[in-house]
Amino acid sequence: MTIRELGEWGLIDWVRERLEEERRRVFHWPSQKGLVLGPGDDSAAFLGGDTTLLCTTDTLVSGVHFGEEYASWREVGWKAIAVNLSDIAAMGGVPKYALVTLGLPSGHEVEKVKELYEGMLDAARPFSVSIIGGDMVSSPVAFATVTLIGEALHNNGHPCLLTRSTAKPGDHVAVTGYMGASAAGLKMLTENLKFDADTAYYLREAHFRPRPRVVEGQLLALGGVKTAIDVSDGLLSDLWQICQRSQVGAKVFQEKVPVYSLVKAAFPQDYMALALAGGEDYELLFTGEPDVLQRAKARLKVPCTMIGEIVEDRSGEVIVVDAQGREVESSHKGWDHFR
Amino acid sequence: MTIRELGEWGLIDWVRERLEEERRRVFHWPSQKGLVLGPGDDSAAFLGGDTTLLCTTDTLVSGVHFGEEYASWREVGWKAIAVNLSDIAAMGGVPKYALVTLGLPSGHEVEKVKELYEGMLDAARPFSVSIIGGDMVSSPVAFATVTLIGEALHNNGHPCLLTRSTAKPGDHVAVTGYMGASAAGLKMLTENLKFDADTAYYLREAHFRPRPRVVEGQLLALGGVKTAIDVSDGLLSDLWQICQRSQVGAKVFQEKVPVYSLVKAAFPQDYMALALAGGEDYELLFTGEPDVLQRAKARLKVPCTMIGEIVEDRSGEVIVVDAQGREVESSHKGWDHFR
Repeated sequence: MTIRELGEWGLIDWVRERLEEERRRVFHWPSQKGLVLGPGDDSAAFLGGDTTLLCTTDTLVSGVHFGEEYASWREVGWKAIAVNLSDIAAMGGVPKYALVTLGLPSGHEVEKVKELYEGMLDAARPFSVSIIGGDMVSSPVAFATVTLIGEALHNNGHPCLLTRSTAKPGDHVAVTGYMGASAAGLKMLTENLKFDADTAYYLREAHFRPRPRVVEGQLLALGGVKTAIDVSDGLLSDLWQICQRSQVGAKVFQEKVPVYSLVKAAFPQDYMALALAGGEDYELLFTGEPDVLQRAKARLKVPCTMIGEIVEDRSGEVIVVDAQGREVESSHKGWDHFR
Repeated sequence: MTIRELGEWGLIDWVRERLEEERRRVFHWPSQKGLVLGPGDDSAAFLGGDTTLLCTTDTLVSGVHFGEEYASWREVGWKAIAVNLSDIAAMGGVPKYALVTLGLPSGHEVEKVKELYEGMLDAARPFSVSIIGGDMVSSPVAFATVTLIGEALHNNGHPCLLTRSTAKPGDHVAVTGYMGASAAGLKMLTENLKFDADTAYYLREAHFRPRPRVVEGQLLALGGVKTAIDVSDGLLSDLWQICQRSQVGAKVFQEKVPVYSLVKAAFPQDYMALALAGGEDYELLFTGEPDVLQRAKARLKVPCTMIGEIVEDRSGEVIVVDAQGREVESSHKGWDHFR
């Protein structure tokens, strides 16, 4: 059986269960000493001395996650760091250090590697994240793997972590920023669509230079929010992850999903599909009791929109309803990278 | 200019200087708060709460670091973890947690991924290292990137770290175990050479299942040794790294380099070249004052051989001399992965 046939989620489930079994059976570690959060969230968390550290890793592969024919290496560098910052943001953590592994063909131009590094430094600089190590290997296909280490914020000696497994029925569901612009940008680039300069610039930036919501994640965590994920696979797919891990269902009010005016104008037919399933927005998707979310929203300096609610029935499912309350989409499964 | 033309070391130098400049110029971080050791050693080191943490990453790419036609996936898994354990060992640290990124073609068989994981667990288990996260991405070429997090041992509140930059003239140079067996194994596999069962088994194991010297690294660090590297690129190449970083020279007494009897018998012409330049032995190469090394050697449970000395002249060079004291090789440069 191939990975495509089994599906990414089947394989990830096997890995997670096998690692769990190893900890339980071999080490008698029902909860390993020092391990705060194992596989299955945006970052792993473990004790480092008297603090809680976070660690996450994400990879961009040429021809899979970006096309060399339309992406600049500086943009690829930015994105490679930004998607990892976004994972730390989705835990409410403070990003600190990065390790960078580059796989590169030996005929690759040095100038491209330098541009890639400049893009990584551009993305890391605003958060004072320092690249402290890594590896460079020969590879027939170019790829960049970044590992990011962060620290959890603490409140009264306890780590404030945003996780995927803490959503409760009655919670409201909210997102920062706008949905669908990154996928709209990808569509513009790969289908070679022409727009006015403002639209083209906005879409390209949205796709290649996501602004990870690091400060917002910290404000949410300190404000008592418990549950978050970053929008990488797609709004519904990522909400489905929260539902799976929290054993709840979710209802999304389609007309409340925030889509930026330029995206609506550029894709009048497709914008809602891009917003619900497009992915790579790297905004924060979070849930919490209505009053907690209202207070948290008041603190954020970026747009923040209530788009749905967590429900008790239809556990593990995400339902989308239209303005009339009619179900328009349901049982959304996660995005499968191998199909 | 391509990477092949510039050379790996030229590119790595550029990266290291650029990162240094970024810290200095942009952040005014001549030594960044919390950062203990940046790029250029076996692992990076940084403060985590009241302890010192280590972080390293290494990648195996199919067709570059292993051939799918002769390597089993279980062996690849072992090696992917072991080479990272070896980097923590070369710092004298305690390995703790691993993150695993797999790049896999979607037509890849699930069974191979499971075997890869079993191999990783086999290598991690003896050191109680737990895989706590990672990533799985679609890629036309299979690769495995492992990030390993460890902790430095402390003595009177100070971290005991083995680094590459602390060798001093007058130090002796020593290695654990035997040299050249891994490269001999690779030669056997790629050239399809036939040996008796014992030899074939020993060589294959040496190539695919290196035993990282984790305990030995810790004993050396606690015993007052300051300087070490693991033998990955080749004995001379790795000693050259120490010389470069410490601004010293080194002399290796060829006839003292330990080569296992089976390797000598299997490669009577080539064994010394394999031992000096073969690489991937994942033994520890370390230096220290003669009495410190003598005491350290007495503590180790594995073979440990004095093979040379650190000299003041010919800084940055490694000289090999034969039994008559004649120079047989000098000015050894590092192994270049892109040539």
